[in-house]
Amino acid sequence: MTNYIIDKLYNRVEERGVVCVGLDTALSYIPDHIKEGRTDSEAIFEFNKQIIDATWDVSACFKVQIAYYEALGLEGLIAYKKTLDYLRDKGEIIIADIKRGDIAATATMYAKAHFDGDFEADFITLSPYMGMDSIEPYLPYLEKGSKGVFSLVRTSNPGAEDIEYLDTTGDKKVYEVVADKITEMGKNYTGSCGYTAIGGVIGCTHVEEGKKIRSNYSNMFFLIPGYGAQGGKAEDVALYLNNGNGGVVNSSRGILLAYKKENREKEFALCAREEAIKMRDAIREAVKNI
Amino acid sequence: MTNYIIDKLYNRVEERGVVCVGLDTALSYIPDHIKEGRTDSEAIFEFNKQIIDATWDVSACFKVQIAYYEALGLEGLIAYKKTLDYLRDKGEIIIADIKRGDIAATATMYAKAHFDGDFEADFITLSPYMGMDSIEPYLPYLEKGSKGVFSLVRTSNPGAEDIEYLDTTGDKKVYEVVADKITEMGKNYTGSCGYTAIGGVIGCTHVEEGKKIRSNYSNMFFLIPGYGAQGGKAEDVALYLNNGNGGVVNSSRGILLAYKKENREKEFALCAREEAIKMRDAIREAVKNI
Repeated sequence: MTNYIIDKLYNRVEERGVVCVGLDTALSYIPDHIKEGRTDSEAIFEFNKQIIDATWDVSACFKVQIAYYEALGLEGLIAYKKTLDYLRDKGEIIIADIKRGDIAATATMYAKAHFDGDFEADFITLSPYMGMDSIEPYLPYLEKGSKGVFSLVRTSNPGAEDIEYLDTTGDKKVYEVVADKITEMGKNYTGSCGYTAIGGVIGCTHVEEGKKIRSNYSNMFFLIPGYGAQGGKAEDVALYLNNGNGGVVNSSRGILLAYKKENREKEFALCAREEAIKMRDAIREAVKNI
Repeated sequence: MTNYIIDKLYNRVEERGVVCVGLDTALSYIPDHIKEGRTDSEAIFEFNKQIIDATWDVSACFKVQIAYYEALGLEGLIAYKKTLDYLRDKGEIIIADIKRGDIAATATMYAKAHFDGDFEADFITLSPYMGMDSIEPYLPYLEKGSKGVFSLVRTSNPGAEDIEYLDTTGDKKVYEVVADKITEMGKNYTGSCGYTAIGGVIGCTHVEEGKKIRSNYSNMFFLIPGYGAQGGKAEDVALYLNNGNGGVVNSSRGILLAYKKENREKEFALCAREEAIKMRDAIREAVKNI
């Protein structure tokens, strides 16, 4: 039986809770004492390293948002690579939030880029606008068991109404068509935990929709963004989980910038840890109260 | 009056024809004599440079597909940057085919990455799945006039049926909803040529649809992929243009690998030029015959 990465992620959630630490590291987030005497690239990596060291044992995984690194060009991507290398060496699970969406030879190149070589991650996020052939080129990696993807499905930004939320003549919303298709495609890559290696990015919206999405897509592992800074609450998030598993909940600024609330710049990593624990426990509590 | 980049592109099409040279440069495309004595990064750049030098005066612009460079990690991205720098220094118009699709702070980071700094391009491609707030963060750059975007609208891959081609209850297909929205959004960024700085990626499909899309979206500039290697023909492409303008037609492998048809490895750049001219003239002829 294939040993799927999704099982590893599931087990991490069992052991450490649902928190996914988002390393969306902007230069402006980094305290001065970390910046001093370091290049931008070094400062970003040092900041990430201290955050990772302070949070790994209370987090299921780390999501690295590549846009923040691309914004700094080659220097930024050196820090991106070093961060992924550090996470991999520690045995941590990496979700590369790249939202690539292309087909055929181009998608094969993205697969090579982010499942192999300098920018290797365990999971990547994908955008399905061009259709299922924008997911297929990644399947050979899923087949081997070592990699997984999260397709955008239903996000919680206002613009989600524009496309994802359109009603189709087939009595489904666009996002439901996407969810159905990735569920079908994912069946061949189901781990022993019952979830498939093709997960979905599902933003927290409102109670009724949360319940419906969770029960309709019981084999889909969710990457749930938007906790904290973007307004998601523990009670809402709990509805998107199955007994506290079946998904990870990302917080980026909420964790990285926890130190700013109390002016504890020197203790930014400790503040991140405290925030991650608080978040983990709040969601655990909310899950109990469902 | 703002001097829009879309006017520059329009004028280039008037002067040089509709060909967009796609620099989707895989290592396997590069002849041995270029590879010899060079690192991968140097070989890619040298190949691109010779293609650019041989085709710029018969092409409207260059589309650089970042996936091919990402696939080689940092080395690849050094070649990507050098290629963009070279194009910019020559005054050529660059479309960075990145198909990024994210929102808010993340999209702002992508804008910084690809409209500024190391990876600066004139146009970028975007994926609209998350909605119009995945396009909005780029608008401040469009406002200044110097930058433009192409949103995915209707592509010609089989998977386009999965989402883009779904019928919505509003009597429009998903791609038509997208096209309507970007048309509306683009109005504020209309150049003196009549086209807006928010173009659309429109694949060649079939005659009737081509005519309909062209007439429904008369102010949208089209980026038309799929010529040659992917099966698009001059007669089809001509229908997506307005009197031979209003769009650029991309060919990547068709041009880069033209030398393979005749085993003229040493003359790969000349073969690329011949192919670009052949393509330009075939489309010009087809436009006359509409």
